[in-house]
Amino acid sequence: MSDIDQILLAKDRLSGHVRQTPILTSRFLDEIAGRRIFVKAECLQHTGSFKFRGAWSAITGLDSHVAKRGVIAFSSGNHAQGVALAAQLNGIAACIIMPSNAPETKIRNTRALGAEVVLYDRETESREVVAEHVNLGRGLTLIAPFDDPLVVAGQGTCGLEIAEQASDLGVSNADVLVNCGGGGLTSGIALALEAKAPGLRARPVEPEEFDDVTRSLRSGRFERNTRKSGSICDAIVTESPGELTLPIMKRLCGPGFVVSDDDCLQAVALAFAYLRIVLEPGGAAALASALFHGNEIDSEDAIVVATGGNVDPGIFRVALDRFYP
Amino acid sequence: MSDIDQILLAKDRLSGHVRQTPILTSRFLDEIAGRRIFVKAECLQHTGSFKFRGAWSAITGLDSHVAKRGVIAFSSGNHAQGVALAAQLNGIAACIIMPSNAPETKIRNTRALGAEVVLYDRETESREVVAEHVNLGRGLTLIAPFDDPLVVAGQGTCGLEIAEQASDLGVSNADVLVNCGGGGLTSGIALALEAKAPGLRARPVEPEEFDDVTRSLRSGRFERNTRKSGSICDAIVTESPGELTLPIMKRLCGPGFVVSDDDCLQAVALAFAYLRIVLEPGGAAALASALFHGNEIDSEDAIVVATGGNVDPGIFRVALDRFYP
Repeated sequence: MSDIDQILLAKDRLSGHVRQTPILTSRFLDEIAGRRIFVKAECLQHTGSFKFRGAWSAITGLDSHVAKRGVIAFSSGNHAQGVALAAQLNGIAACIIMPSNAPETKIRNTRALGAEVVLYDRETESREVVAEHVNLGRGLTLIAPFDDPLVVAGQGTCGLEIAEQASDLGVSNADVLVNCGGGGLTSGIALALEAKAPGLRARPVEPEEFDDVTRSLRSGRFERNTRKSGSICDAIVTESPGELTLPIMKRLCGPGFVVSDDDCLQAVALAFAYLRIVLEPGGAAALASALFHGNEIDSEDAIVVATGGNVDPGIFRVALDRFYP
Repeated sequence: MSDIDQILLAKDRLSGHVRQTPILTSRFLDEIAGRRIFVKAECLQHTGSFKFRGAWSAITGLDSHVAKRGVIAFSSGNHAQGVALAAQLNGIAACIIMPSNAPETKIRNTRALGAEVVLYDRETESREVVAEHVNLGRGLTLIAPFDDPLVVAGQGTCGLEIAEQASDLGVSNADVLVNCGGGGLTSGIALALEAKAPGLRARPVEPEEFDDVTRSLRSGRFERNTRKSGSICDAIVTESPGELTLPIMKRLCGPGFVVSDDDCLQAVALAFAYLRIVLEPGGAAALASALFHGNEIDSEDAIVVATGGNVDPGIFRVALDRFYP
């Protein structure tokens, strides 16, 4: 179970460790969107994405004798770095299982944050088998990327901040657009808003061909994606929604948005020009939906969660070359 | 005269209009620098630079019958946009005299912020003569880029925020490195720190060949630069320090830093990778001094003011191509 009480407990554990990220605005973006857009810049969070929240929440929520044996996680990117830093700051070991073809920078950064990185071949090896082997006799605790109540509670603290910041800004009626992979952040934010800002409604945003959550919300069943990789929005590509997260999203979220790769690249370029923040394509999908799919937005205002900024410079250059305004 | 009382008055006028910008950190940057670095991200300010502070302060500090006639400014970039937005939000006219070869984006953005833009030919025309002609019979008030007590007071509000944020972070002894053109921001911050955080000391940072303030602080006289343009750090290129600002800097600031264009480009790339913010080269000079000139820093910690992020995408690409870590 995940609920607001768990989020409030996670907030206490995160206090003084997480960065309260700012809400940014630009009248140029408002003009393109035809409404006010408020961008919650989670790319400015520690390790460059919201993932640090869930990782910290999960690690500090473990019993201390369990935590001290260390943690293990699968990830090629943002979750890896969030878990690595949270573990290091809590003085425990982290082992991250990463695909050997993950970007060199991400592998290097995860190692530099003190984690033991174990590489596996995505084509020929099962990461679960690799993890089991690595974990023999060690008792490392798995920190799941989204389907874990402590992780959802940590991500929900972002929703608490949004509720408070929106209130300060006088925004009481808005769609809150969230880049969505497995739904940990989306469901956490939805729970926080239900309790603290009922006029704000979370809505998941996904890339084309990886719209499992949008389709699941529509059909009411767990839908899967046919493809497993191949989106430039790698940070929000998952096979299907979480067992824990989908029921929450079904109960609380509005319909999903589906955006194209080009929409996301254009949003990356516009965030560069008008907000001066660095987004990865998967961190810019929600901004893209606000800018280019405004007719699907139900509320007066839009709050966009810009979830991450760990982008390959090659992709970033493509975004600027093609879409700088 | 500029003093802390004027800064506190400016703070009141700016309250609810200026964005309190966050302090960002990265252990990767700390490692390169060999000390803790705290980055005050003024690139996230409205219009992408600290200039909005001084512009708002100056405009709201005018007598209302003077203000309603409108304002005029010379600028090819950040000051232009700061004045344009501040004027528009206060419901008064702004006329900005810009060189005709200023970047197209900056001209377009300044116009989009409601300003009347008058272009002049930098080679054949005097901007002062153009301004006089434009202003005939209109009574527009000149908003100077730095040598104006109201402008210095507005920039000083950035120093108030630094004093408070440093205290929250437990930083009581630090060099505060400030990208420096005419010295409006540097002297404003220095005055704020003198009053509110005496363990923090402002130090100007300038690009090679445009180090008029550094040389003036050394000689005690007003030194001038030989060249007038040609730095990639265009935002902080001025001919000489201000009459108002130099005495303040002489009294309160530590020695200046001089950084190379390559230092700045490298800092741009590192801020992209590790802070996920967009900086222009002149907005990254202070970060460059903290990263690459650490032996000239006197204090334990360094606070860096990242002053602006209005960068041409071509220059940004060069920074990534050459210096992405």
